[in-house]
Amino acid sequence: MPPPADPALVDKLVLANRILYRQGVVDGFGHVSARHDRSSEHFLLARNMAPALVRRDDMVTFDLAGEPLDAAGRRVYLERFIHAGIYRARPDIHAVVHSHSPGVIPFGVTQQPLRPVFHMAGFLGEGTALFEIRDVAGDTDLLVSDGRLGAALATALGMRSTVLMRGHGSTVVGASVEQAVYRANYAEVNARLQLQAKQLGEVIYLNVEEAAKAATSNDSQVARVWELWTREIGTIE
Amino acid sequence: MPPPADPALVDKLVLANRILYRQGVVDGFGHVSARHDRSSEHFLLARNMAPALVRRDDMVTFDLAGEPLDAAGRRVYLERFIHAGIYRARPDIHAVVHSHSPGVIPFGVTQQPLRPVFHMAGFLGEGTALFEIRDVAGDTDLLVSDGRLGAALATALGMRSTVLMRGHGSTVVGASVEQAVYRANYAEVNARLQLQAKQLGEVIYLNVEEAAKAATSNDSQVARVWELWTREIGTIE
Amino acid sequence: MPPPADPALVDKLVLANRILYRQGVVDGFGHVSARHDRSSEHFLLARNMAPALVRRDDMVTFDLAGEPLDAAGRRVYLERFIHAGIYRARPDIHAVVHSHSPGVIPFGVTQQPLRPVFHMAGFLGEGTALFEIRDVAGDTDLLVSDGRLGAALATALGMRSTVLMRGHGSTVVGASVEQAVYRANYAEVNARLQLQAKQLGEVIYLNVEEAAKAATSNDSQVARVWELWTREIGTIE
Amino acid sequence: MPPPADPALVDKLVLANRILYRQGVVDGFGHVSARHDRSSEHFLLARNMAPALVRRDDMVTFDLAGEPLDAAGRRVYLERFIHAGIYRARPDIHAVVHSHSPGVIPFGVTQQPLRPVFHMAGFLGEGTALFEIRDVAGDTDLLVSDGRLGAALATALGMRSTVLMRGHGSTVVGASVEQAVYRANYAEVNARLQLQAKQLGEVIYLNVEEAAKAATSNDSQVARVWELWTREIGTIE
Repeated sequence: MPPPADPALVDKLVLANRILYRQGVVDGFGHVSARHDRSSEHFLLARNMAPALVRRDDMVTFDLAGEPLDAAGRRVYLERFIHAGIYRARPDIHAVVHSHSPGVIPFGVTQQPLRPVFHMAGFLGEGTALFEIRDVAGDTDLLVSDGRLGAALATALGMRSTVLMRGHGSTVVGASVEQAVYRANYAEVNARLQLQAKQLGEVIYLNVEEAAKAATSNDSQVARVWELWTREIGTIE
Repeated sequence: MPPPADPALVDKLVLANRILYRQGVVDGFGHVSARHDRSSEHFLLARNMAPALVRRDDMVTFDLAGEPLDAAGRRVYLERFIHAGIYRARPDIHAVVHSHSPGVIPFGVTQQPLRPVFHMAGFLGEGTALFEIRDVAGDTDLLVSDGRLGAALATALGMRSTVLMRGHGSTVVGASVEQAVYRANYAEVNARLQLQAKQLGEVIYLNVEEAAKAATSNDSQVARVWELWTREIGTIE
Repeated sequence: MPPPADPALVDKLVLANRILYRQGVVDGFGHVSARHDRSSEHFLLARNMAPALVRRDDMVTFDLAGEPLDAAGRRVYLERFIHAGIYRARPDIHAVVHSHSPGVIPFGVTQQPLRPVFHMAGFLGEGTALFEIRDVAGDTDLLVSDGRLGAALATALGMRSTVLMRGHGSTVVGASVEQAVYRANYAEVNARLQLQAKQLGEVIYLNVEEAAKAATSNDSQVARVWELWTREIGTIE
Repeated sequence: MPPPADPALVDKLVLANRILYRQGVVDGFGHVSARHDRSSEHFLLARNMAPALVRRDDMVTFDLAGEPLDAAGRRVYLERFIHAGIYRARPDIHAVVHSHSPGVIPFGVTQQPLRPVFHMAGFLGEGTALFEIRDVAGDTDLLVSDGRLGAALATALGMRSTVLMRGHGSTVVGASVEQAVYRANYAEVNARLQLQAKQLGEVIYLNVEEAAKAATSNDSQVARVWELWTREIGTIE
C-alpha cells in the first residue's frame, strides 16, 4: 500500500469528474483517473459511481494490475483495466479519461481518425488511434474488463493522446489531470467541428508541424481554462 | 380494484416522469407507466398532464383494457391504450415509455430502424420495430386512441424493446421503471449518433452477439445512472 | 380608443413573450401580439423591446393600420405592420408570432415548405406559405415596415398557419395566444426534424387528411402544455 | 500613459466578456477589446484570463504596438497583436472580438466565406475575409503572436467586418462594443444557419444592397438586445 496521495491531487481528481460531466464529456458513465503522486505503480480512481457525484471519500487506490487496494467492499468500475493498462505502458502519462463523449463516437464506428481542425486540438496532430476489440477478443460486450484487454488497448493507443474505441467510446491521456481534461474536452469539440467541416467541403487540417507547435502553445494556457472550470464547480466535499 | 401499489413504485414513477423531461425524451407531451406491483392486470399512469408536473397524487390505476379505475373525474391520456396493449401482450414488461423523443422521429418517418452504434444501446440489438398506423386504420390523427390500435402496436413491437411510430414518436419498454427510462434515454442518444455516423461513412454497428452481451452488462450498471438522475431531480411531492 | 383589454389577456401575452424566449423561438428580437378582446379593430403588442423583458405595463394598443394609440412616446416595433396586416385579412386570427426561429430559416432561404413530420405539427398540413419581399418591393432591408408590405405578407400567408419570410424569419398565426405559441414552438421543432429526416432518406409526411385530424386532436391538448410553460415562467409583473 | 478611461466603457467591456461567454462565442479562450475613449492610440483588454471571469480590475491598457502599459506583472494575452493590428489599420473600429466561435470554424477550414442568410447578419454583406497564416509565416502554432502577424491579419480583414482565421477561429470588429458583440453573436448564428441551409439546397443569400440596408436598420436596434444581454449578466464587479 502506497503512502496517502497528496490531498491536492485528490481534490483535482474530484474536480475533474465534475468538470467532465458539466462539459458533456461523460454522462452517468465514464471515469477519470490519476497516477499516484508518491508511487508510480499505483493510481487513483473513484469507486463504481456516476462521475458527477464523486467526492473525496469515493477515491480508491489501484495497482497497475487493476486491483483495488482499499476498496473495503465498495464496487469498482468494470473497466479499471483501461487505466491500469495505460499507466503500465506509458510512464509519461499521469491522467486518463475514458468516456462515451458523443461527438467522438461517430468517428470510431466509421473508422475515421480525428484530425485537428483548429489549434486547440493540436494534441490530435498525429491523428487518433483505433481500438477494434473484435480483433483481440471476438464478439464481446465491448468492455475492457480484464488485464489482457487493457494491455491491448494500450498497445493500440501507442504514443498518441487519444484512442477511439469502436462501438464504445474513447480514451484520452495526459501528463497531468488538467491536461487530460483539457484534451478530453477539446477532442469532443474538435469532433463536432470536423463532422460539420466535412459537410461543407475539403477540410484543411493542421499539418503535423502546426499541430505540434499549437500543442506546445496550448499547454502553457491550460491554467486559464482550468481556473474557469474549477470556479464553475465551486466547493467540493 | 387492486390493493394500493407500493409507495416506492409510485415514487419511482413520479421520478421517471421528471427525469424523462430533464433528458429531453418527453416535452409537454409523452407518458410513462408501470405495471402494478400487486396486480399484473393493472398499471399506473398519471392523469392527463405534462410529465414534468406529475406528483404522487396524480397517479391513476388502469386495467388492461385501458379503463381508469380511480380517475374520479380527472382527464386521462388519450393514448393509455399504448400501455394497456403492451402489458397485455408482454408479461415480461413492467414499464412503458411513450414519447416524441426528437432524435428518434427522423428514423420512423424514413422507415429506417435504429441499430446499436455503441454498447450503451445494446438493447437495440435486434433493431427497432416499425408501426405504420395507416396499415391498420387508414388516415387517422396518428394517435393510439383505442384498444384495437393498442393491440396492433403491441403486435408490431413483438419481443423487441422499441417500436418506432411513423409520424408520431416511439415507445420503449422495460422489465423495470429504471430499465425503461435508461432505454428511452439511450435510444434517443443512439439515434443522434446514428444520424451523425451515417453522414461520415459506412457504420459498423454492434452485431447481435455483441449487442446481447452489452445489454446484459449494462443491466448490471443501471443503478449507477439512476442514482445520478434521481439526485438531480431532488425531492418529489 | 377601445375599452381596456381583459387583464387575463394581457397576462397571457406577457407570458407568451417570455415562453417564446425560453423555447428559443425568439431571441432579443421577434414579437407576439393578441387581438383586443373587446375590439376586433385593435391589437395589443409590446413596445419596442426584447420579448424576455416584457411586463404588463409595456403593452401598447394598436389599430389595424398599425398606428399606436397609447404609446405615449414609447418606441414601437418597426414591424408592427406584420400584425396589423394579418388581423385585417384574417378575422379568424387572434394571435400572431413573428420570429427568426432558427430551425425554420433554412427552409425559407431555400424556398422549401415545412411539411408535417409528426402529428404535433398537423397545423402544417397545407404546407407553409412563402413571402419573397423582393417580388413586392425589390431590394429592401427585409423588414415589413409599412402597411403595403404588411398587406402583401398577409396575402402570401392566405389561409395557412405559417408563412416563411425569405432572408428574414417566419410568422405563425393562431385562434388564441396559446395556439399561436404552440404552433410557433412546434414549427421550430418540426423544422429541425424535417432537416434531419431528409438527411436519412425519403420522408413520409403526414398526408392532408392525417394532418387535419391531428391538428384537431392537438387543439384539445394545448392546455396541457400551456400549464407547463406558464409554470416554468412563474410570476410576472 | 493615457488618462483613465471612462468607467462606463470599462463596465461595458466587462459585460462584453461575460455576454460573449454566455452566448457560446467564447469559451475559456477568446478576448474582446475596446479602443480607449480618450486616446485613439490605446486600447483596453483584460489580462490573460478566461473571459467569463473578467472584472473591472483586470483591464490592462495597451498601445498600438501591443505593449501593455500598466500590466504590473500580470500576464497578458499572447494574441494582443490581433487587436493592436486592427486598431492601427482601421480608425473606424472601436471594438474587436477574437474567438473560436464553433459554428464559424468549419467555414474557415474549408475556405468558404460566410454570407448573410438573414437580415440580422447584414454586416456580412461583403462576405467574410480569410486569413491563411501559412501564406505569411509558414508552419506556426496558428497564433497571431507578434506585430507582423497582427498587421497581416488586419490587411486580410481589409474594410470588412469579419475575418475567418483558418485552423484557428475568427475576428469580428465594430464601431462600438455593443456592435462588435452583436456581430460576433450573429456571425455565429448565421454560420449555423448557413451550414443547415446548404444541406437543404441552393441558398438565396441577401444581396449586397439588401445586406447594406439591413445592416443600417439593425444598427438602430442594437440597444434592444444589449439591454437584454446586460440584464441577464446582472451586477459586475
